Amino acid sequence: MMTINTNSELSQVPFVGVNQMVNLVNTLGIKPLLSGLIDYLEQDFKQWQGFDKSPRYAAHSPEGVIELMPTGNHDKFSFKYVNGHPKNTKQGLQTVTAFGVLSDVDTGYPLLISEMTLLTALRTAATSAMMAKYLAPKGASTMAMIGCGAQSEFQAIAFNHIIGIDTVRLYDVEPEAITKCQQNLKLYDIRVIACESAQQAVTGADIITTCTADKKNATILTSDMVKDAVYINAIGGDCPGKTELEDKLLMRANVFVEYEPQTRIEGDIQQLNSDSPITEMHQVITGEKQGRTSQDELIIFDGVGFAVEDYSALRFIYDLVKENNDIQTLDLLANPQDPRNLFGITV
Amino acid sequence: MMTINTNSELSQVPFVGVNQMVNLVNTLGIKPLLSGLIDYLEQDFKQWQGFDKSPRYAAHSPEGVIELMPTGNHDKFSFKYVNGHPKNTKQGLQTVTAFGVLSDVDTGYPLLISEMTLLTALRTAATSAMMAKYLAPKGASTMAMIGCGAQSEFQAIAFNHIIGIDTVRLYDVEPEAITKCQQNLKLYDIRVIACESAQQAVTGADIITTCTADKKNATILTSDMVKDAVYINAIGGDCPGKTELEDKLLMRANVFVEYEPQTRIEGDIQQLNSDSPITEMHQVITGEKQGRTSQDELIIFDGVGFAVEDYSALRFIYDLVKENNDIQTLDLLANPQDPRNLFGITV
Repeated sequence: MMTINTNSELSQVPFVGVNQMVNLVNTLGIKPLLSGLIDYLEQDFKQWQGFDKSPRYAAHSPEGVIELMPTGNHDKFSFKYVNGHPKNTKQGLQTVTAFGVLSDVDTGYPLLISEMTLLTALRTAATSAMMAKYLAPKGASTMAMIGCGAQSEFQAIAFNHIIGIDTVRLYDVEPEAITKCQQNLKLYDIRVIACESAQQAVTGADIITTCTADKKNATILTSDMVKDAVYINAIGGDCPGKTELEDKLLMRANVFVEYEPQTRIEGDIQQLNSDSPITEMHQVITGEKQGRTSQDELIIFDGVGFAVEDYSALRFIYDLVKENNDIQTLDLLANPQDPRNLFGITV
Repeated sequence: MMTINTNSELSQVPFVGVNQMVNLVNTLGIKPLLSGLIDYLEQDFKQWQGFDKSPRYAAHSPEGVIELMPTGNHDKFSFKYVNGHPKNTKQGLQTVTAFGVLSDVDTGYPLLISEMTLLTALRTAATSAMMAKYLAPKGASTMAMIGCGAQSEFQAIAFNHIIGIDTVRLYDVEPEAITKCQQNLKLYDIRVIACESAQQAVTGADIITTCTADKKNATILTSDMVKDAVYINAIGGDCPGKTELEDKLLMRANVFVEYEPQTRIEGDIQQLNSDSPITEMHQVITGEKQGRTSQDELIIFDGVGFAVEDYSALRFIYDLVKENNDIQTLDLLANPQDPRNLFGITV
């Protein structure tokens, strides 16, 4: 009988659950963690051409959708599992939950399994702040935030830390969401102003973040509400039939996106003709194209979230935990000494 | 500040690792486990039309492939992650490793994460034996097995238990693989005959199982080696450019498959014209079409492995463990009391 060897290091895969992710946020601090994520995002956006970019796999049902978002390059492969079920909250469940896996392309072995509900919030805020480095007006100090849901505090902290925003002007259709965001931001050196309308929130703002949810083709921002010399970080319109900006506003602005084929379907630009001018951000990050060219420009980042960002986030977390012996591991992989003798591990 | 609630039942997902899967095999016994799998497989093949059947997602690299195999129906969704890296064995790693996830379609929440290296071996043997119930000659008692790798013992035990095979005739190009299989089957009431050629192995066999690996378009069985009144369970030819049977043999036989679009690309019938006659097995299992109609028929099951079989296997394991409080669970899902207050779990 063969030696059984299912507990060896080769069979174990590091696991970062929700408690471990919270622990990483608290140990490192949310700001250094966002900076680290941005480093990894920039590295990967600079290597854009090397990624296998495919449409997400989506299984639709009457109540929601389950998606798999794979991508990879010559070095690593990743996928994220994510669901969207708006009616879940009625049962005390989350609308969106997510987890992801990072693998080694050379062996096909999984390297990391991680929760990605929290990690997606962090990577989305990091992505927004990274884009703003290239697109926001210089010296921006005030950000309006329309939508104070699960993503709002992460956005505020990222723009405070990376862009230097010192004031956020909050608006949400539900006043208790504004209060929640205000409470959570008390620990940070950010001036928070609760507003009574989107119009009031955007008044005097250099940056406008729209991150509303659960809406169909809504118009959160109309063109007449927004002056030039503003940067709009539009991240709430992220699937077909879900938009936030008036088409006239989009047509007035220079629009930047992550990945054109996906944003044409999922982003706010789904309202425009399929040949409307846009720029992909990897071209800006590599220096191939320019981001903001003058203080007076009106710029919109039409963000929908792309698999490469999840890849970067998983790669970052993997590098954080791979040398850490305190991380939980899972015996996910069979490891018989003789690979042909799989049966041997059962006896 | 909100109550933090990441340890509640709602955030936990049952995990069946390799040790737990071995434990299930040993606790239940491999034969009852195979019978249980066949029950679930038959239930799902009878509901074939209700499944979302899509091509697998494959990320190819110079050294191998990483695949995601999703499927689902109105009730549950599943996917399997599986790699194939032939050079891994040189590094002491497995060529193929796999794990899978079962989810609730109504909420999008994962229900189970499971290792699937061992589970795939079990479901493949269960699938083969289930097909043989409909396709093998009555009273079959001797099975030739060409290829004595990781799948061989599972096949022998399944055919012994479900079909009543009492003798297996083993052949492999590597004599030590035959010895390994022979040793492992000693605990079972099966007569094992080691053979020196494929020709010798198939002599007098009612059933021939071909499960060779790591070969390109090989010809393990030629037409002149096989008499009528035989059932060939051909499961080794399972990807483009990987076949086991001579085309003349395929043309002589009635061929049954799991899912035509996939088998045309991956199965032994990739050698035939795309309109060669075949029958999908779900039609046989529902009674819509006939399986074996006479003892004299030569029948081939050209098995490649399909996502619905993984769905059945995960569903079976989930039903086994869901009421079991001893099963390990993972804190995979964030569960703030107020769904909008995701940030609250980090403070």
